[in-house]
Amino acid sequence: RTHRIAVIPGDGIGQEVMPEALRTLHAAADRFGFALDLLEIPWASCDWYQAHGEMMPADWKAQLQGVDAILFGAVGWPATVPDHISLWGSLLKFRREFDQYINLRPARLFDGVPCPLANRRPGDIDMLIVRENTEGEYTKLGGIMFEGTEREIVIQESVFSRVGSERVLRYAFEQAMRRPRRHLTVATKSNGIAISMPWWDALADRIGAEYPQVTVDKQHIDILSARFVLQPQRFDVVVATNLFGDILSDLGPACTGTIGLAPSANLNPERRFPSLFEPVHGSAPDIFGRNIANPIAMVWSAALMLDVLGERAAHDAIVGAIEAVLRDGPRTPDLGGAASTTALGEAIAAAL
Amino acid sequence: RTHRIAVIPGDGIGQEVMPEALRTLHAAADRFGFALDLLEIPWASCDWYQAHGEMMPADWKAQLQGVDAILFGAVGWPATVPDHISLWGSLLKFRREFDQYINLRPARLFDGVPCPLANRRPGDIDMLIVRENTEGEYTKLGGIMFEGTEREIVIQESVFSRVGSERVLRYAFEQAMRRPRRHLTVATKSNGIAISMPWWDALADRIGAEYPQVTVDKQHIDILSARFVLQPQRFDVVVATNLFGDILSDLGPACTGTIGLAPSANLNPERRFPSLFEPVHGSAPDIFGRNIANPIAMVWSAALMLDVLGERAAHDAIVGAIEAVLRDGPRTPDLGGAASTTALGEAIAAAL
Ligand SMILES: CC(C)[C@H](C(=O)O)[C@@H](O)C(=O)O
Ligand SMILES: CC(C)[C@H](C(=O)O)[C@@H](O)C(=O)O
Repeated sequence: RTHRIAVIPGDGIGQEVMPEALRTLHAAADRFGFALDLLEIPWASCDWYQAHGEMMPADWKAQLQGVDAILFGAVGWPATVPDHISLWGSLLKFRREFDQYINLRPARLFDGVPCPLANRRPGDIDMLIVRENTEGEYTKLGGIMFEGTEREIVIQESVFSRVGSERVLRYAFEQAMRRPRRHLTVATKSNGIAISMPWWDALADRIGAEYPQVTVDKQHIDILSARFVLQPQRFDVVVATNLFGDILSDLGPACTGTIGLAPSANLNPERRFPSLFEPVHGSAPDIFGRNIANPIAMVWSAALMLDVLGERAAHDAIVGAIEAVLRDGPRTPDLGGAASTTALGEAIAAAL
Repeated sequence: RTHRIAVIPGDGIGQEVMPEALRTLHAAADRFGFALDLLEIPWASCDWYQAHGEMMPADWKAQLQGVDAILFGAVGWPATVPDHISLWGSLLKFRREFDQYINLRPARLFDGVPCPLANRRPGDIDMLIVRENTEGEYTKLGGIMFEGTEREIVIQESVFSRVGSERVLRYAFEQAMRRPRRHLTVATKSNGIAISMPWWDALADRIGAEYPQVTVDKQHIDILSARFVLQPQRFDVVVATNLFGDILSDLGPACTGTIGLAPSANLNPERRFPSLFEPVHGSAPDIFGRNIANPIAMVWSAALMLDVLGERAAHDAIVGAIEAVLRDGPRTPDLGGAASTTALGEAIAAAL
């Protein structure tokens, strides 16, 4: 079995953590008997933008023809390129044009990771955030009127399609069905956002009727965020629109102390297009260049990729190696140690 | 001095906590030598809606003519009236039609209140959230096309005016100037929400240039939410749009364990219209009728009202009484005790 993977390190610490993911992938390939065909991509980075005036070449889709998945580091270097340009020109473009409509983000409490919440132990928190990833609040639709005057007014439009909302809700119900608790939290804000969110609520009710075994809890995003902190054990699967999912998938990992460890999968479940796997952390300009970034989120993202490519055993082994390293060290500075990015990557590969 | 106050208990525990706020107000009036002229309002409740088919009478503004402030309990009873109807017909109407464009929400760690975050002590967290309160993401603009079909599509519009954004940003800078740390966090999401948020960022930069003594930190709402949990000591004043302010002002109090204690002030700073003071907690149908709701958020909201009405000494005395009761008890069940709503209210009034 050969997996053809596009490798896009991107900006900042994306360039430092990617080699450790590749180190792990090679070790897993040796142990589990598959082959890797890696396509190294220099674009989708702010350096590339500086040189070419755009984030990706015009033929980017052609260049990615035939890849099974994309492994992505991080993008963004606000000192030289504004975030909305670098992101819309790369990551958000992949999500949309490859119809990666599911963004899956787990948050778990691990042994060895200090928890910022009082009195929580490993096992207490284990949630899966299912985020809509292609539409909703992230748009460039709208505009500015009376620009530059006192009367200036800005319209920003959100767009929700039935197809787009239905498929993410249904996917979340399916995930809930596969987990022992069969519990789904639906994030909303229908008491304030008066057109789209009552519609979203009604759609969730309609799809929920097809899954009578799943208990559903609809919560407004304000109190839901509060409960991530106050009652995190309450959550199993959480489904949310693009913006709310973005917030909850940083907040959930924060509550487990693992924001630097969180992986994500941007999935096109039907496999009409390649899926993309990336750490939730960004390019972290503040720590770039010192070889101290924690590579676990990147390595874990690579493991999620293998799982989707059918290499379940390799995925489980990598997650096991991550758990062992989190428990026994070495540790990078974010977890209180002094080990380098490279040392952590080597330890994970060795544990494999 | 006589203060004319409209008293609106509203729904659920609003009706249980309001009498305790009035008890405190009367005690403060006695001690500090002002008079109260209370106008008790039966509408702006779901019961009233059931009887009259609308949340407030047509002449609601006339009825409130001449009041100095509105003391508000809670509104919402989703079992009989959908939230978007009850809220848009009352609370959100007050905020808009009385141009209460600032929503002020403090979050502090108190002695005697268990903190859900590990290793934080009183004094570590002391932030003030300044939320835009009249426009932004909360609108009824937009619509549904191809309704009921597979092609169904929903547009939800957000509206930001230069006037509306400028005044809340400026208010937040002024608040930051009055506090020792002079630090302001600006919540944004300009990397994803591509029209309104880059515009909001630029406006914040422009106004920030008028306040060189204030250090400004712009953060995307996803990582900002995470940092409320991971580094709460980092925050002083936080300014946000309507939706982001809604989220942060539940999350901030949650991080201090005080979500049931959090007060808020909906201000029309120019006093062209009455301001409205309300607890952040809602009507809490699940605990209504048992006289166990914690009245502190309501009492504290009444204290904020007195402050705005020029009764600074009374405000300080009430906050002192709240601090004493939080430290020494009695405690309602939410704080691990068995005291009733009434008992807590009596203790606060006695401490006064
Ligand atoms: C009830 C709801 C409409 C309201 C809001 O979102 O503003 C509430 O959550 C608040 O924060 O005051
Ligand atoms: C960088 C940004 C556009 C992106 C998002 O908001 O989706 C990131 O925060 C994420 O969660 O993947």
